[in-house]
Amino acid sequence: MSLKIIGIDADDTLWHTETVFRLTHKRFNELLGEFAEEEALEAKLSAIERENMKTFGYGAKGFTLSMLETAMDVSGGKVSTKVLQELLQAGKEMMRHPIEPLPGVEEALKDLAERAQLILITKGDLFHQESKLASSGLGSHFSGVEIVSEKTPEIYTKAFARHGASAETALMAGNSVKSDVLPMLKAGGYAALIPYPLVWEHERADKPDGHPRYREIETLGGLPGWVDEIRPKSK
Amino acid sequence: MSLKIIGIDADDTLWHTETVFRLTHKRFNELLGEFAEEEALEAKLSAIERENMKTFGYGAKGFTLSMLETAMDVSGGKVSTKVLQELLQAGKEMMRHPIEPLPGVEEALKDLAERAQLILITKGDLFHQESKLASSGLGSHFSGVEIVSEKTPEIYTKAFARHGASAETALMAGNSVKSDVLPMLKAGGYAALIPYPLVWEHERADKPDGHPRYREIETLGGLPGWVDEIRPKSK
Repeated sequence: MSLKIIGIDADDTLWHTETVFRLTHKRFNELLGEFAEEEALEAKLSAIERENMKTFGYGAKGFTLSMLETAMDVSGGKVSTKVLQELLQAGKEMMRHPIEPLPGVEEALKDLAERAQLILITKGDLFHQESKLASSGLGSHFSGVEIVSEKTPEIYTKAFARHGASAETALMAGNSVKSDVLPMLKAGGYAALIPYPLVWEHERADKPDGHPRYREIETLGGLPGWVDEIRPKSK
Repeated sequence: MSLKIIGIDADDTLWHTETVFRLTHKRFNELLGEFAEEEALEAKLSAIERENMKTFGYGAKGFTLSMLETAMDVSGGKVSTKVLQELLQAGKEMMRHPIEPLPGVEEALKDLAERAQLILITKGDLFHQESKLASSGLGSHFSGVEIVSEKTPEIYTKAFARHGASAETALMAGNSVKSDVLPMLKAGGYAALIPYPLVWEHERADKPDGHPRYREIETLGGLPGWVDEIRPKSK
């Protein structure tokens, strides 16, 4: 079976976002320090985020609403509107943060595009993800963009089918074991983990070490090498 | 040129949403009545919504963030967290509101699906729109769903192309002159306006009365009749 198509995750695979989220968390903890310890603040925010995900889905707008809710909740309603305004502002800044491709990403995409069709597959707010892709300047390397509300085996199968390929002839690369690797392996395809130093708490999962269609690769620049191993030598 | 594909808008074409938005506006005006007159409140909310659209795009999460921002702004920071919590709750209720198809919609979709391929084309939050479609029970009538960040002639052309059709062989039906009708005519296709009694302020535009590829039709149930006029008599 030959490899025809490569799906690539966006946040923390093509560009930083977790770094920006962490900075916003830091600001959140500073602003609410008078009401609770950092550990308690983070635990509360995480619980509210998880609960709200059923209503908001993934993305920066839902995260901002969850920060505001946590601030009001954890302070017993005593938080000032000044602090809430600062949190709202921090959320907006996160959404407007300029997007810089990670080192080596542009070169790696060029190499990969010579080997297979590339599509970007990412979760999150449609509008925000499209804005980020536009501002990254990386759009031209992809023949398609799939912004999805979840990353499940069924959704991978459908997304690749929309581009004329079965999951068995597809590879997914990204920084999340839970979202990019495990469901893609379950769909019958190849999966590459390109680790990012920070992992969002809701994305943690065990790595499928030893799986024949799985590889952990240090940077996206290492992926063309694995693609060449997978593809039949005579193209 | 024959008609191969029909795009159908979702909010206020297949089901009510503007009604729910208006109820949320009413709650917003009641909760902030002590700080300003309704007219001033609405003007401020509309201005903040418009400004924030560059960062948030369309949808209920951005609207909820804009309500919170307006409340803090218009009260000079004096609004209580109790009121802010109620606004956040009102936003969530809006997102969780059960979806009921408008009268006659299910029947109309069946009739239309016998005549052409149906795809749903809507703006808004990806996650929220998918949840609404799932809860409406109407998903099975559509062979595709396109959730888009804007409705422009280029985006219509692309969306229909993804389903193997050119805009010239496509018809778009929806309740917004600005989003469903004008850009679709510009793309070279047919457009049907199915008016909804309430129109969101940011969606107002003049109707293209007299345009040869445009028709205003009272309900979706009247659309199959126009489709039969457009399609060559011998299929």
